[in-house]
Amino acid sequence: MFRALARASVALGPQAAGWVRNMASHQLLVAPPKALLKPLSIPNRLLLGPGPSNLAPRILVAGGLQMIGHMHKEMFQIMDEIKQGIQYVFQTKNPLTLAISGSGHCALEAALFNLLEPGDSFLVGANGIWGQRAADIGERIGAQVHPMIKDPGGHYTLQDVEEGLARHKPVLLFLTQGESSSGVLQPLDGYGALCHRYQCLLLVDSVASLGGVPIYMDQQGIDVLYSGSQKVLNAPPGTSLISFSDKAKNKIYSRKTKPVSFYLDMKWLANIWGCDDQPRIYHHTTPVISLYSLRESLALMAEQAIRLPTVTTVAAPTGYNWRDIVNYVMDHFDIEITGGLGPSVGKVLRIGLLGCNATRENVDRVIHALQEALQHCPQNKL
Amino acid sequence: MFRALARASVALGPQAAGWVRNMASHQLLVAPPKALLKPLSIPNRLLLGPGPSNLAPRILVAGGLQMIGHMHKEMFQIMDEIKQGIQYVFQTKNPLTLAISGSGHCALEAALFNLLEPGDSFLVGANGIWGQRAADIGERIGAQVHPMIKDPGGHYTLQDVEEGLARHKPVLLFLTQGESSSGVLQPLDGYGALCHRYQCLLLVDSVASLGGVPIYMDQQGIDVLYSGSQKVLNAPPGTSLISFSDKAKNKIYSRKTKPVSFYLDMKWLANIWGCDDQPRIYHHTTPVISLYSLRESLALMAEQAIRLPTVTTVAAPTGYNWRDIVNYVMDHFDIEITGGLGPSVGKVLRIGLLGCNATRENVDRVIHALQEALQHCPQNKL
Ligand SMILES: Cc1ncc(COP(=O)(O)O)c(C=O)c1O
Ligand SMILES: Cc1ncc(COP(=O)(O)O)c(C=O)c1O
Repeated sequence: MFRALARASVALGPQAAGWVRNMASHQLLVAPPKALLKPLSIPNRLLLGPGPSNLAPRILVAGGLQMIGHMHKEMFQIMDEIKQGIQYVFQTKNPLTLAISGSGHCALEAALFNLLEPGDSFLVGANGIWGQRAADIGERIGAQVHPMIKDPGGHYTLQDVEEGLARHKPVLLFLTQGESSSGVLQPLDGYGALCHRYQCLLLVDSVASLGGVPIYMDQQGIDVLYSGSQKVLNAPPGTSLISFSDKAKNKIYSRKTKPVSFYLDMKWLANIWGCDDQPRIYHHTTPVISLYSLRESLALMAEQAIRLPTVTTVAAPTGYNWRDIVNYVMDHFDIEITGGLGPSVGKVLRIGLLGCNATRENVDRVIHALQEALQHCPQNKL
Repeated sequence: MFRALARASVALGPQAAGWVRNMASHQLLVAPPKALLKPLSIPNRLLLGPGPSNLAPRILVAGGLQMIGHMHKEMFQIMDEIKQGIQYVFQTKNPLTLAISGSGHCALEAALFNLLEPGDSFLVGANGIWGQRAADIGERIGAQVHPMIKDPGGHYTLQDVEEGLARHKPVLLFLTQGESSSGVLQPLDGYGALCHRYQCLLLVDSVASLGGVPIYMDQQGIDVLYSGSQKVLNAPPGTSLISFSDKAKNKIYSRKTKPVSFYLDMKWLANIWGCDDQPRIYHHTTPVISLYSLRESLALMAEQAIRLPTVTTVAAPTGYNWRDIVNYVMDHFDIEITGGLGPSVGKVLRIGLLGCNATRENVDRVIHALQEALQHCPQNKL
């Protein structure tokens, strides 16, 4: 390894001669790892946790395709199709609609980094882990964060929200539509109009609900909506969907400070995604293959025209250790289900039926596995 | 679409009844996009630009595999193998070594967000676009940025660096090993030791050079090194490699403020990548399929034990418009090459020979294409 090739100095100019000479003074101290000499092997696993879910067959095919350039016109066409697909599943006409090159958390940061400036008042519905994380990020960037804390299982009524708006005069409210750590569906009708009466923007997380629960971004007056690729959409994790209303866009374009992140700066992303009228300029290398997969998952949505429920949250059976049950189902049936998350840890079991995993057969399999688990796991006699 | 399934209210609790009733008040205003009803079709293209490059056959196979959970033990095993692979290609024993869930720019932000605190002095080698971007990000997070500006084509001598260190007393110096916008190879021997004499950490970008040019992270005293997946490694864009020396780790763990990003907070990432001795806790959903591909690309490096030069930068031929040449080669030969970037725009043509694309046959093809282009493109008689 590290064999000096004569071509190097041609390719890299006169400086290269320097390191060709210098190479003699270095040694290979780290050997090629043995584990990497074995072939990659992936178990065949049914993923009925709250996500990621299994990839639909057509998405598997897309993942195996060859690269094209991130700035090729065919790639821009695929990105345009993704934009239209997101507009469809979000039910929005917002021009500022695109995919983020990162997971759901990355989309949340994209929203907060671009919408909040230091000192801005930020109201957060914190009825589970996702609100906690939104509050954490808000604090990192110097916003005035006001969490409305509720026990897991609670949701926010219009009255709860109005009290928070009146008291804290926030520029932004965060709500989670599908609170996947507690199994709560947050209603969304009327919340946008209420926020707008108080000059506040409404940001909604639909990572665990999109495609399983109806959402109407424009009709519900949602200003920023984001979701993930790896839940009901059955695409690989690593990209996420986001859209901004004109009100939200105006807030971004009239900022006094630059967002802390260049990678997530929405003015740059708007350009590379063809959302402004400027020629597209290189910003970062977009995840080409993941975008093929995302395109296919949105195509499936456009074709299927049907939506399924997502995460079924059941109370953890008393007298058992929930971990025993989760492990039993994994070890004896190769099925993933999970326990609670954040405030719901120890209280619930969570079973995801996401996209192509949401079949009657899978429901039967997981119920059968749970029955066996209840028979065989140690029971704590009370 | 949006057909109410009876199961929804079972799955999502009593609130669901609310939206089932409410659904009647919303209409589908955005129809399924026509473009998504056509099959996905990807042209067969040879990518000889400065990256992304074509995927090696074994990496194509990995991209088509089925999902497993991001928290399954098999996935942690793959992540451990990736860590070892990075330690090998970086030639480092650093325990804090991992992959970032984002592109090269995301790794740069991960480095700067974690290493710099507001007010810290940051010295930047700015001899092309990558230094400009590092300076831009440094400014966004409130560092005192001191760019050492050089014309494209220049590099930094030990003397240049020592002057900057003495003058600005930085906590961090940024250098680009393979300056792919200008074709310059930055020597790295002696720079780490020099920085350490001035209590400064050394951060190096090897996105366009890793695997094509030797690098010895530990022996060269580099404190933070990052690279990309989509260049010589021939993996899809969307992940990047990073490693931190103990000195760098200490700076991170003794910060007074939290980094602005939760997604890129190195303490969380260290945990999920098994770099601390704590049980792994969910942080974000890692890009499982992209990590399969990255694992395979590192396995290829471990097997091949050879490195190739990367980006050949040639002066743009006088009398021609460089765009005509790039377009001619694309339109008539389906080969991507590119022009300059940032300060080198209009001055150079850049031909990438990355990983599996670095064959004699491809060199012949691109030379033939360039010869034809010079014959057929309009020439501006001077
Ligand atoms: C409701 C909700 N929001 C956000 C996220 C975070 O997404 P990611 O893990 O892709 O960062 C999740 C993931 O489970 C989620 O269920
Ligand atoms: C030297 C160098 N640094 C950083 C980058 C940025 O990487 P990405 O486009 O993956 O964000 C590139 C990409 O071409 C590069 O060549």
